[in-house]
Amino acid sequence: MTDVHVVGVGMTRFGKHPDADSTDLGAQALLEAVADAGIDPRLIEAAYCGHVFQGMVTGQRVLAQVGLAGLPLTNVENACSSGATAIREASFAVRAGEYDVVVAVGTEHLTSQFRGALTPDPSDPEAAVGATMPSVYAMRARRYMHEFGMTREQLALIPVKNKNNAALNPLAHFRTRITVEDVLESRPVADPLRLHDCSPVTDGAAAVILMSDKAKKRFCDTRAVRLAASTLRSGSVDVEPTSMTFEPLTRLTAQDAYERAGIGPEDVDFCEVHDCFSIAEVLRVEGLGLFGQGEYPAAVQRGEADLGGRLPVNPSGGLLGKGHPLGGTGVAQVVELVRQLRGEAGNRQIEGAKVGLAHCRGGKAVGIEGAACTVQVLTR
Amino acid sequence: MTDVHVVGVGMTRFGKHPDADSTDLGAQALLEAVADAGIDPRLIEAAYCGHVFQGMVTGQRVLAQVGLAGLPLTNVENACSSGATAIREASFAVRAGEYDVVVAVGTEHLTSQFRGALTPDPSDPEAAVGATMPSVYAMRARRYMHEFGMTREQLALIPVKNKNNAALNPLAHFRTRITVEDVLESRPVADPLRLHDCSPVTDGAAAVILMSDKAKKRFCDTRAVRLAASTLRSGSVDVEPTSMTFEPLTRLTAQDAYERAGIGPEDVDFCEVHDCFSIAEVLRVEGLGLFGQGEYPAAVQRGEADLGGRLPVNPSGGLLGKGHPLGGTGVAQVVELVRQLRGEAGNRQIEGAKVGLAHCRGGKAVGIEGAACTVQVLTR
Repeated sequence: MTDVHVVGVGMTRFGKHPDADSTDLGAQALLEAVADAGIDPRLIEAAYCGHVFQGMVTGQRVLAQVGLAGLPLTNVENACSSGATAIREASFAVRAGEYDVVVAVGTEHLTSQFRGALTPDPSDPEAAVGATMPSVYAMRARRYMHEFGMTREQLALIPVKNKNNAALNPLAHFRTRITVEDVLESRPVADPLRLHDCSPVTDGAAAVILMSDKAKKRFCDTRAVRLAASTLRSGSVDVEPTSMTFEPLTRLTAQDAYERAGIGPEDVDFCEVHDCFSIAEVLRVEGLGLFGQGEYPAAVQRGEADLGGRLPVNPSGGLLGKGHPLGGTGVAQVVELVRQLRGEAGNRQIEGAKVGLAHCRGGKAVGIEGAACTVQVLTR
Repeated sequence: MTDVHVVGVGMTRFGKHPDADSTDLGAQALLEAVADAGIDPRLIEAAYCGHVFQGMVTGQRVLAQVGLAGLPLTNVENACSSGATAIREASFAVRAGEYDVVVAVGTEHLTSQFRGALTPDPSDPEAAVGATMPSVYAMRARRYMHEFGMTREQLALIPVKNKNNAALNPLAHFRTRITVEDVLESRPVADPLRLHDCSPVTDGAAAVILMSDKAKKRFCDTRAVRLAASTLRSGSVDVEPTSMTFEPLTRLTAQDAYERAGIGPEDVDFCEVHDCFSIAEVLRVEGLGLFGQGEYPAAVQRGEADLGGRLPVNPSGGLLGKGHPLGGTGVAQVVELVRQLRGEAGNRQIEGAKVGLAHCRGGKAVGIEGAACTVQVLTR
């Protein structure tokens, strides 16, 4: 069976795009991925589009806008893991032998849907008791501080690191360096979380072109990066019964990915993780087994997760700094992995990176019912 | 590479379910499919869920409700082709060698979203000029009458046939036989279409369990039906430039399916097609190449599409009679194909059926931008 390779990547500037919609953004990202791959776009045989709030047949509109109408296209939705899931499904289409060249696009025009925190679904039992996303993550932060002695200042170092990385990323939503004081003085959202602890409402899109071994050898051999694993799991209280400070769902999905890729967490050179809130980055890297439980805040303080550190986390700026257009996020993480693995990440380049990991988590924060978690491993 | 087999099917009663939601319906259909397959549900390794208006991570909620949380689950959306696309993606996961047992669920609680015709998307350029679905299909009906001399009475024979089939289907939304007079005297919707020419707002869900060759041999050999083709294409004016009475998108998608299945339209014993309006059935069966262009209305008049005819069309009752819960529709079509091919369709059984075809068409009716078309071929 063929391996799957990422041969082209593209993304829009993340931020507010009042003069565009999700179709425009998706089309721009797709065209950039085609240009990056250096291929004739007519080689593309099928497409997958990840989005959440963009309405029916959004991906088909993207194809039509770039003159590729007629291809098979599937829209996929897995909340904040939608873009990552689009890549996974595209990789199955290649591995099934159905196609040799497939594109995955993630797009979201979120500013036209929400201004602040996403409105919970009316059927949501957590929201019915006021447990919106910021409030749940605030409780998780408070509990983590209680269990592991993390200080508020340590937590603030995460948005500082990610926004300082974003300042080096020309496509990031935020490009201003910040300090711990900036975080602590920003507007309270849900105690102890403040504005800089929360990912923003962002518009944006990203696209990746996948190829089989055969197509890669023929069209794009030199710059290809291998998709070594793309795993997905769903969650609920059955999966995550008790803890506010550990994520079994993230752990299980990561274990699947390590097994597929034939690596362990010790082999990961850098990662992009789902830092929808500052505390979320802590929970994710520990869930992934990249840092021991309770150990990440001190590691950040020692600079271990910085661009020049032992294991850089969110070199792109992450959701906190680069922004979080739901469907776009998972694909943009892979765009960053590919640019780093190719050595094309400019002044945020991680030297000698060979193995990158991307993690998304969508749906419920602790999971009464629905959640979707993805882990992707790319290797050079 | 493995073939893909349908080894279990289930569906809810289609109709109005004021005391259930899309999760409840999806869970019921899934459990029925498991019971029909006669397998331990813990054999299921992954799931796909097709729906349109049911909100984030709907499929994950279905899994959680039946105690299968933790599995990989992808929600797919391709408008009215969502359920069919879920089956297609599930089949790729099997063919890719990722899983041996996968379930595809389609579900929609439409009565909680709409009462009459679906509200068009605000960005929709057709809707901006009043071209809602009923009005576009009304124009297509009028044009077809002009080009091919179809009479209003001939068109009425289609809802009569489908609702009379539905009267034989214990799970159909409508179970009352009707006459041509009933159609012609029903409330006008968009001239020449009347209420009986339009599919209803329906709640419902369906599920199918797919297996690889290996799993089928081990667990479910005797009643399995082969999924010989599951094809998808997107559309736009680029694909369908001129005609109101012929569907190049349906034709292209069908050609792909015939090629994959190694058959021609002459080999199809019966079909379920996307009769969202009476005229739609005409356009679909002719687009599929099952009847010559302009010839279907007279063929219906001769009884050729009846249960005992040369090529029964919509034996289940179709969208007009069985009902049309968007995400559920494409999966329910395959449920009917499987029951017919197994000889388990009761008093609507088509004798000796060996090859069944299902067709869905979602999104725009004539296609300025986005549309999704699927064709599936099942063989015994």
